[in-house]
Amino acid sequence: MSDDELQSVAMVGGTGPLGRGLAGRLAVAGITVWLGSRDGARAEAVARATSEMLPASAAAIVGTENQRAIQQASLTVIAIPYDALAAQLSALTGLDGGRVVVSTAVPMAFDKGVPTAVRPEAGSAAQLVQAICPDARVVGALHTVAAGQLLRFDDVLDEDVLVCGDDPAACDVVRALVARIPGLRPVAAGGLAVAGACEGITPLLLRLNRLHRAQTGIRITGL
Amino acid sequence: MSDDELQSVAMVGGTGPLGRGLAGRLAVAGITVWLGSRDGARAEAVARATSEMLPASAAAIVGTENQRAIQQASLTVIAIPYDALAAQLSALTGLDGGRVVVSTAVPMAFDKGVPTAVRPEAGSAAQLVQAICPDARVVGALHTVAAGQLLRFDDVLDEDVLVCGDDPAACDVVRALVARIPGLRPVAAGGLAVAGACEGITPLLLRLNRLHRAQTGIRITGL
Repeated sequence: MSDDELQSVAMVGGTGPLGRGLAGRLAVAGITVWLGSRDGARAEAVARATSEMLPASAAAIVGTENQRAIQQASLTVIAIPYDALAAQLSALTGLDGGRVVVSTAVPMAFDKGVPTAVRPEAGSAAQLVQAICPDARVVGALHTVAAGQLLRFDDVLDEDVLVCGDDPAACDVVRALVARIPGLRPVAAGGLAVAGACEGITPLLLRLNRLHRAQTGIRITGL
Repeated sequence: MSDDELQSVAMVGGTGPLGRGLAGRLAVAGITVWLGSRDGARAEAVARATSEMLPASAAAIVGTENQRAIQQASLTVIAIPYDALAAQLSALTGLDGGRVVVSTAVPMAFDKGVPTAVRPEAGSAAQLVQAICPDARVVGALHTVAAGQLLRFDDVLDEDVLVCGDDPAACDVVRALVARIPGLRPVAAGGLAVAGACEGITPLLLRLNRLHRAQTGIRITGL
């Protein structure tokens, strides 16, 4: 995949805070976003509302059904929350043929609003995505970026994004995608086997957010 | 515990890289360290060698047996590696009466040198320490600071230390201790229930160290 192919991205399950935040940040970076949802009309409304928050120079955010979003772009970001991930992903086709698929989901359970990490049978959400889409090149990324922070489009980001996957070329593409968003530094973290460790940081950050009334992220020091 | 009581610290299991690194950094910060080992003669040799690497203005590092180190200071840092933690800690007395005990151990298994997080039955190494020392006030901290980086005493540190525990006053003491080391920022992370999440970051950092030939740590952004 060349830089040319970073011209557009499918954002599956894109109507939630993470999907909207990423869509807006990518559009600002000049990347057309096909913002998908099970409900095409809802996707259109969210895409329109998100676009209106961005400068006129931003690329388009086009709302459509998840399945059509996948058909429009060669790179797919899955922004479906973990609870709905298996059911919604299994209903989609086209995530095959070596397609690069970015898993952002974090396996968590909430007890009175307090998040705890959950360990899926597959080992991690990214490995679950790989099991459902065996012919895709799955890359885990963007787990620790606070959706609320992404959505404040005027805020300058300043944090790292751990990127893990078994296909080095696919990881290269995703690191290039992350690097297109100002203030995010992609950090190669290894194979898909480390996805569980990357995903496990997020419940801790959510607890820090509650404790410190903040929107935290991580930075790896010493690199 | 007042600031006065931060004048000395017992470093149990202090002859390994983390113990030596912390002992040196604390001594440079003016805190006397009772560096303990099961083998008192070995502790004396390590304490002497570590002291010789420090400026003359550093406080003393005194090598002695673990049990005697505990008797000399009101604050105890446990620097025993996880594999030996339960056996060595169970053999010691005096970690009771509300004493503040810092757990630094990280539950890990190594497969051909590659570290993976292990989940102890107690939930975390810190909770294991609490189970062995039910009358201590256990605080988890210093899991993510690279021992190799600590040991390069001329290197300036620049990273965060997550501090978790169920006793707020004990956490205050440990955050004050961490803050005495220049370049380390203590971050309150919640109760002992989050110790597993804090400890779980370390195997990921060790993998990043291998991948990037670096000595990584973490910084929490957005605070």
